[in-house]
Amino acid sequence: MTPTERAATLVEALPYIRRFADQVVVVKYGGNALAGASEGDALALFAQDVVLMRQVGMRPVVVHGGGPQISDLMTRLGKVTEFRDGLRVTDRETIDIARMVLIGQVNPQLVAAINIHGALAVGVSGEDAGLIRAVARNPELGFVGDVAAINPTILHSLLDDGFIPVVATIGTDASGQAYNINADTVAGAIAEALGAEKLVYLTDIEGLRRVVDEPASLIRQTSPDELEALMTDGTIAGGMIPKTESCVHAVRNGVRRAHILDGRIPHVLLLEVFTDEGIGTMVT
Amino acid sequence: MTPTERAATLVEALPYIRRFADQVVVVKYGGNALAGASEGDALALFAQDVVLMRQVGMRPVVVHGGGPQISDLMTRLGKVTEFRDGLRVTDRETIDIARMVLIGQVNPQLVAAINIHGALAVGVSGEDAGLIRAVARNPELGFVGDVAAINPTILHSLLDDGFIPVVATIGTDASGQAYNINADTVAGAIAEALGAEKLVYLTDIEGLRRVVDEPASLIRQTSPDELEALMTDGTIAGGMIPKTESCVHAVRNGVRRAHILDGRIPHVLLLEVFTDEGIGTMVT
Amino acid sequence: MTPTERAATLVEALPYIRRFADQVVVVKYGGNALAGASEGDALALFAQDVVLMRQVGMRPVVVHGGGPQISDLMTRLGKVTEFRDGLRVTDRETIDIARMVLIGQVNPQLVAAINIHGALAVGVSGEDAGLIRAVARNPELGFVGDVAAINPTILHSLLDDGFIPVVATIGTDASGQAYNINADTVAGAIAEALGAEKLVYLTDIEGLRRVVDEPASLIRQTSPDELEALMTDGTIAGGMIPKTESCVHAVRNGVRRAHILDGRIPHVLLLEVFTDEGIGTMVT
Amino acid sequence: MTPTERAATLVEALPYIRRFADQVVVVKYGGNALAGASEGDALALFAQDVVLMRQVGMRPVVVHGGGPQISDLMTRLGKVTEFRDGLRVTDRETIDIARMVLIGQVNPQLVAAINIHGALAVGVSGEDAGLIRAVARNPELGFVGDVAAINPTILHSLLDDGFIPVVATIGTDASGQAYNINADTVAGAIAEALGAEKLVYLTDIEGLRRVVDEPASLIRQTSPDELEALMTDGTIAGGMIPKTESCVHAVRNGVRRAHILDGRIPHVLLLEVFTDEGIGTMVT
Amino acid sequence: MTPTERAATLVEALPYIRRFADQVVVVKYGGNALAGASEGDALALFAQDVVLMRQVGMRPVVVHGGGPQISDLMTRLGKVTEFRDGLRVTDRETIDIARMVLIGQVNPQLVAAINIHGALAVGVSGEDAGLIRAVARNPELGFVGDVAAINPTILHSLLDDGFIPVVATIGTDASGQAYNINADTVAGAIAEALGAEKLVYLTDIEGLRRVVDEPASLIRQTSPDELEALMTDGTIAGGMIPKTESCVHAVRNGVRRAHILDGRIPHVLLLEVFTDEGIGTMVT
Amino acid sequence: MTPTERAATLVEALPYIRRFADQVVVVKYGGNALAGASEGDALALFAQDVVLMRQVGMRPVVVHGGGPQISDLMTRLGKVTEFRDGLRVTDRETIDIARMVLIGQVNPQLVAAINIHGALAVGVSGEDAGLIRAVARNPELGFVGDVAAINPTILHSLLDDGFIPVVATIGTDASGQAYNINADTVAGAIAEALGAEKLVYLTDIEGLRRVVDEPASLIRQTSPDELEALMTDGTIAGGMIPKTESCVHAVRNGVRRAHILDGRIPHVLLLEVFTDEGIGTMVT
Repeated sequence: MTPTERAATLVEALPYIRRFADQVVVVKYGGNALAGASEGDALALFAQDVVLMRQVGMRPVVVHGGGPQISDLMTRLGKVTEFRDGLRVTDRETIDIARMVLIGQVNPQLVAAINIHGALAVGVSGEDAGLIRAVARNPELGFVGDVAAINPTILHSLLDDGFIPVVATIGTDASGQAYNINADTVAGAIAEALGAEKLVYLTDIEGLRRVVDEPASLIRQTSPDELEALMTDGTIAGGMIPKTESCVHAVRNGVRRAHILDGRIPHVLLLEVFTDEGIGTMVT
Repeated sequence: MTPTERAATLVEALPYIRRFADQVVVVKYGGNALAGASEGDALALFAQDVVLMRQVGMRPVVVHGGGPQISDLMTRLGKVTEFRDGLRVTDRETIDIARMVLIGQVNPQLVAAINIHGALAVGVSGEDAGLIRAVARNPELGFVGDVAAINPTILHSLLDDGFIPVVATIGTDASGQAYNINADTVAGAIAEALGAEKLVYLTDIEGLRRVVDEPASLIRQTSPDELEALMTDGTIAGGMIPKTESCVHAVRNGVRRAHILDGRIPHVLLLEVFTDEGIGTMVT
Repeated sequence: MTPTERAATLVEALPYIRRFADQVVVVKYGGNALAGASEGDALALFAQDVVLMRQVGMRPVVVHGGGPQISDLMTRLGKVTEFRDGLRVTDRETIDIARMVLIGQVNPQLVAAINIHGALAVGVSGEDAGLIRAVARNPELGFVGDVAAINPTILHSLLDDGFIPVVATIGTDASGQAYNINADTVAGAIAEALGAEKLVYLTDIEGLRRVVDEPASLIRQTSPDELEALMTDGTIAGGMIPKTESCVHAVRNGVRRAHILDGRIPHVLLLEVFTDEGIGTMVT
Repeated sequence: MTPTERAATLVEALPYIRRFADQVVVVKYGGNALAGASEGDALALFAQDVVLMRQVGMRPVVVHGGGPQISDLMTRLGKVTEFRDGLRVTDRETIDIARMVLIGQVNPQLVAAINIHGALAVGVSGEDAGLIRAVARNPELGFVGDVAAINPTILHSLLDDGFIPVVATIGTDASGQAYNINADTVAGAIAEALGAEKLVYLTDIEGLRRVVDEPASLIRQTSPDELEALMTDGTIAGGMIPKTESCVHAVRNGVRRAHILDGRIPHVLLLEVFTDEGIGTMVT
Repeated sequence: MTPTERAATLVEALPYIRRFADQVVVVKYGGNALAGASEGDALALFAQDVVLMRQVGMRPVVVHGGGPQISDLMTRLGKVTEFRDGLRVTDRETIDIARMVLIGQVNPQLVAAINIHGALAVGVSGEDAGLIRAVARNPELGFVGDVAAINPTILHSLLDDGFIPVVATIGTDASGQAYNINADTVAGAIAEALGAEKLVYLTDIEGLRRVVDEPASLIRQTSPDELEALMTDGTIAGGMIPKTESCVHAVRNGVRRAHILDGRIPHVLLLEVFTDEGIGTMVT
Repeated sequence: MTPTERAATLVEALPYIRRFADQVVVVKYGGNALAGASEGDALALFAQDVVLMRQVGMRPVVVHGGGPQISDLMTRLGKVTEFRDGLRVTDRETIDIARMVLIGQVNPQLVAAINIHGALAVGVSGEDAGLIRAVARNPELGFVGDVAAINPTILHSLLDDGFIPVVATIGTDASGQAYNINADTVAGAIAEALGAEKLVYLTDIEGLRRVVDEPASLIRQTSPDELEALMTDGTIAGGMIPKTESCVHAVRNGVRRAHILDGRIPHVLLLEVFTDEGIGTMVT
C-alpha cells in the first residue's frame, strides 16, 4: 500500500471511532461461521477484532450458542437426541448437559481467546443476576425456552467497568428452572434491551440474497419489510429464519442497524464497522 | 421467646451491622458441610444467610469446589480417575470435564439458589477477567494448579454494583490453559486479595479440636502459631490441612478473622456474625 | 435462648435493616413514658435504642416537651401557673422560663444520655435556623403557639451528616417572639415535613383501646378513620388527643406509619421496629 | 459622601471579600461590649454585621458567655454565689442554673437576633456532638472547667451547610457531667480547632494600651511576645487576661490574626474586616 | 470620611455581593467613553473595576469595537473609506484590516490592561468556537454583518474556569467568511444568550434624557416601552440607537437590567453595581 | 485496496487510538511547510487531520508563527525591516504590527480552517491569561523575546472542554509589554509545560539528514545526543536550529517524542500517528 492509500483508509475510518464511542455492538458468534478457516485461527482473529473494538471505545457484547458441542457430549454419554421441527427435545438430563456445555465448555473457550489480550472478557450465563427470564416454548419440547424478559443490569455493570461480556444462552423461569434458548434470538433480545447501535450475526454465508442461487443478487442493504417478504415467499428459510426474524424485530425496536456477515472473512467485523461501504447485508 | 429475650438478641446483633457494613466476607462452601441435612434445605438456608448478609450491607463472596461431582461425570464418561497423594491426576480430558462440572453445573446451582431471593448472584470462574492466575503444581499431576496471583478487579466491580460473586475455582496460566485448583486455597487467596474482614470455611465438623477424640477440646479461639503447632504434631491432618493453612496464611496477610464452622447447623453464618460469643473455631 | 431461637430472631430482624435504611423515624419522648422504671435507667435504655437505630442506618429524630419541669421551676421562682382548658397561660416571664427549661435543662439531659455512646446527638430548638414557625393559638393564652410551618433544612443538614437531632419545641413568629408549642403536635408536624417512615409516641400506656376499661380491647392496628370515630365518641380523650390527632394527620400526609407505644417496656423501640408482629398500636 | 469617596471605600473593601471567602472568623460576644448603646440596638447592629459577613462568603462563628445573667437567676432563686479568685464556686445546682441560662436564655437571644435576617443561626452548646470536652479546673471550685479538647465536627457540618453557629460554653467530661467554662477561653480554643483566619473579642474598651492611663498608647498591632511581657509587668490585668492569653495561644497555634475591638462602635466588625487600616488592637 | 460613613457604604454594598454572586454582567466598552480622562488612566480604572467585580464572584464579560482604530490603519494603508447611512462599506481588504485591528490591536490592549492584576482576561473573537454566526446586512455594504446566532459555549467554558472573556466583534458565516458587526448589537446578543443579570454600556454621556437639551431631564429608570417612544419621536437618535435598541431587546429577552453609564466617571461600574441609588440610566 | 489491505491498516492503527487517548500533541504549523501544494488545499488537509485527531480523543494544540506575513504588512506600511543575525529588529511600531498580523490575521485563518468542521478551534495569544511570559533577548533587538515561563492554565481549560487551542506566539513581560517570540521555541516550551506525548514540527523538508546532500541519509529515529552532535558539526544549521534545539530540550524535559515531518505530504500527521513505521524524523 502507498502512504496515500493508507491515509485514505484512516481518513475514512477515524470518524467511525467517534460515532461509535460508547455504543453497544452485540455480536452473535456461531460455530458454523468459522468453516472457511482452521478454527483456532478464526477464533483468534475474531477475538482480536472484539478487543480492538473495545480498545477504541466501543462496547462489544458476545453471544454464543453451542448445538454441535451439546450433541457431542450427549453422544459420549450414550444419550439419544430427539429433534422435533428442528428443535432438540430437552428433558431434565439434556438441559443439565446443555448447561454444562454452554456455560462450562464453549463460554470459557471464547473468554480465554479474548483474554489472551488482557483481563477483558467475563463469562455470563442467563442465570447470572437474572439476565434471561425464560418461558417454555412447548411442553412437548421440555426445557426449550423462549425469551420472556431480559434484565440487562449485569451487562450494564460489566460494560460500565470496561469488561467484554460473553453470554451463554441458558435462561431460567421464576422457579429457577433452567431452559436452553436459541442463541440468535437471545442476541436480538439483548441488543434491544441494551439499545444497541448494531446487532451483528457472524455466519458462513456471504449475506442474504434476493435470489437463492444467484451470488450477484446479494443484498447489501435492506429493510424489515423486504425481509418479511423474503421470508414469506420462502427465499429466506431454514437456519437463517431466527437470525432474520431477530434482525427485523431488533431494528423495529430501537437497534440502529443489524448485519449478517460472512464470518469466514478475516477481520470482517472491522471491515463492517470502519469502512464507508461496509460488507455483507445490512438491515436498517 | 419473651420480648426481653428478643430485645437482648437485637441489642447484641445490631452493633455488628455497623461494624461489618461494606466489609467483605469470603465463604467457602463445600458439599460435605451439608451432611447433617437434606441437601436442598441446607443449600436454601445457606443462600438465605448470604442474602441477609448482603441486605444489611456486607459484601459476601462465595467460593466453591466440586470434587464429588467431577468424579461422578468422569464415571459416567467411563474415565478412570487416578489419585496421587490425594490429588487427582488431571490430563487434558479431565480438566475439560472439571471445568464443565465446576463452571457449568455446581456454580449455576449455587447461583440459582441465591437468585430465588432476587437478581443478586453472578457466577464467576477464575478465567473471567483474569481472576485466578494458575501455575502447575507438579508436572506429574497434569493440570492441577496452585494460585500464582489473584486479580480481584472483577470481584470489586461486582461487589461495588451490589452483586454476590460465586466463584468456580478454575484458573489459567499465561497461555490461557485451564487448571483445577483446590477451592480451600482459592478462598484464602481471594480473602487476602480483597482484604476481607472474615474468611469462613463451612465444614461438616464442629470446629478444630486440641485433642482429636475429645469433643470438649473444641477450640473456640486460636492463633496462627498454635495452628501451625497442631499441624506439625499431626493433630490437624487430612482434608483440614488446606483449610487450616489458608486460615494461617490469610490472618497473617491482612484478613481480620478466619473461621471454621459447622455447616450442618442451620443459619450458622448468622450465628457466627451477629452474636458476641460466635460459634465454631475462630483464628485471629 | 437456643441458637435456633436466636437465629430465628435474626432472620426476622435483618430484612428490616434494609427496609428502614436511611428512613426517618420521629420519636416523641415524654417524661411520663418512663413511669415504670427508675428514670435514669429508662432514659439510658431509650438512648441505647436510638443509637442502635442510628448505627444500622436509620435516621432517628427525637422530639420532647417538659411540662412538669417547667412547672417545677415556676414554683421555685414563686410564680403561680394558671391553666385554661388544660393549657398553661403563658405570659412573657413564663415563656422565658419555658424556654430556659426546655432548651437549657431537658434538652441537654437527652443529648447527654445519647452522647455517652458517641458524639451523635445535637440539641436543636425550634428557633434554630427557623425550624418551627409559630402562630398564637389564642391571645388569652399568651405565648402558647400552634405550628404555622416547619422549615426542616437544619434537620436535613444534621441527618445527612449522621447526627441525631433532639428537638425542643419552642417556635418563633415572624418578629422573633418565642412561643411554647405542644410537643406531640410538633412531633407530627416534623414527621410530615421530613416524609418520615414512622412517627412514634412513647407513652405510659400499653396502646389505644377500643373499650377504655378492657385491656383485651387493645388496638394492634387501626386507621385514621377509626381513630377519628374513637375521638368523636369519647373513647380517646384527654392527653391522648394531641397524639391521636397528630397520628391521624401525619398518616394522611405522607408518614407511612404512626405508633403509640408503651415507653415502660425496655427496648420497646427495637421490638417495634425489628419484629414482624411489632408492639403497641400502629396507625396506617 | 461624594461618589468618589464611596468608590474609594469600595475599592478598598472589595479585595477583602475575596481574601476572606470561606474563611472562619470566631467572634466572642460579651455582654459588656454593649455598654455604649441601648442593648437592643447594639445586638441588632452586631447581628447585621455577622449576617453581612456570612452573605459575602465568610464563615462567622459566635461564642458567648453570660455571667451577669447567671447571677441574676441565682439571685431570683435565692441562691448565694460564692467567688474564689474571681471564679464562681459552682455546685450541682449552680451548674444546672448556668446551663439553663447560657443554653436556654442567652443563646436563643443571639440566635433570634440573627434569624431576623433569615434562617441562618443555629444554637449549639458544648454538649452537642461532643463539641467541648471539659476537665475540672480545681475540685474546690466544683463544676468550673477548662477545655480539654474541641471536637469541631458539628461546627464544620453547620458551616459547610451555610449556617452561623452560636456557641454556649457548657462542656462535658467523659461521664457526661456538665461544666461551665470561661467563654473567652472557649472562643480561642474553637478558633484554633477550626484554623480560623481571625479571632475577634468584642469588648467595652478601645483596645489594649501600652500604658494603662494613656489613651494615646493604644496598641494598633502587636505580637504574642509583647503581650506576654505586658501581662508579666501587670499592664494587662483582670478580665483582659483570659482574652489576651487566648489571643497569644491562638496566634501561636494557627490562627492568622486575633483582635480586641470596641464593641460599642457601630459596625466595628465591618470596619475591622473591610478596611485597610482596621480598628482596635490586632495580634499577629 | 468618618468610620460611620465608611460603615454605611459597606452596609449598603455588601448585600449586592451576594445578590450578584455568579451573575453575568456584559460590559460594552467604547473608546468614546474615555473622553473625560487621559486614556491610559480611564482604561486602568475600568480594568480595576472589572477585576474587582470578578474577585467578588461576579462574571464580567467585556465586549468592544474599534471604529476609530480601523479608520486609522486604513488611512495609513492609503485606503479610502466609504460610508453609506453611517455604515462603512467593507470590501475584502477592509474586512481583513478590521479583523487585524479588532482582534490583533484593540483586544490585546484590553486583555493586557486587565492582566496587570493577574492571569484573568482571555481575548476571544466571534470566530473562536463559532461564537458569533453572522449574516450579511446588505450586499451593497459588503462584509458588514448582523448577528444570526450566538453560540456561547466558549464563554461558559471560560467563565466557569474563572476567566474574564474580552470579545472582539468579528463574526463568520457558514462558509467561514468574516464579517464586521456593530459591537453594541453584539453586546446585547451575548447578554441575552448568557441570560445576563446586567448589560452595561459605557458611553461619554451622563445617560439618556427625556428632553435633549435639558440636563435635568436625565432618565434614572425607564422601560422598553418608553425607550421605543423616545426613539420614535427622535429624542434618541444617532449613535445611541444601536445601544438603545439592544437595551430594549435584551430586557425583553431575559436580561434583568440594562444600563447606560457615563464612562468618564471614575469607577462608574462599582458605583452602579454596589450602591442603592445607582448611576446613569437603568432599563428594566 | 483489497479488504485485506484495509483490514491490515486498521489493525495497525486502532491500538494507537487507545494509546494516544487524552494525550496532548503540540503541532507547530509553519507557512513554509505548505510549499508543495496550493496553500488552501494544504491548510484544509492539515485542518482535517487535526480535527480527526481530536475526534478520536487526542488533544491537539496548534502553534504558529507568521514571519512572511509580518514582512508583507510592514512593506505595505512603508516600514523598512532591519535584520541582525537573522532576527528582526523590533521597535514599538514593529511589535504592534507583528501583534496585529499574528493575532489578527494568521491566527484567525487557522481557526477558520478548523472550524469548518465544527465549533472546535479557539485562538489564543500568549497574552491571554498570562500564557507566555517573555523576557527581552537583547536590548539591541528591541521587542524580540525569549520564553521566561509558560502558564498553561488557559490551555488546560480549553483542552478539558474539548476545544483545539491555536496559539499566536506573542508574549508579555511583567509590565504588560508585548514581545515577538520564535514560534518553534514556543511550541517546544508549551509541549514541555503540558507534558505532551508528542511535539511535531511540520516543515518543508523530508526530515533531518546525517549527510546534508544525501537523501538516503534521512534520519528515521535519533536521540538528543546525536542531534547535539549534528548541530555542533554544522550538519544541522540555519532555520532548523530552533526546531532541533526545541526537540532536544523537550525530549529531555518530559515530552515523549518529537517529530520533524514533511508538511507537503498529504495527511502526514495521520501517517505519523497511526502507523507502526511512522514518517519523517523522530527524536526519543
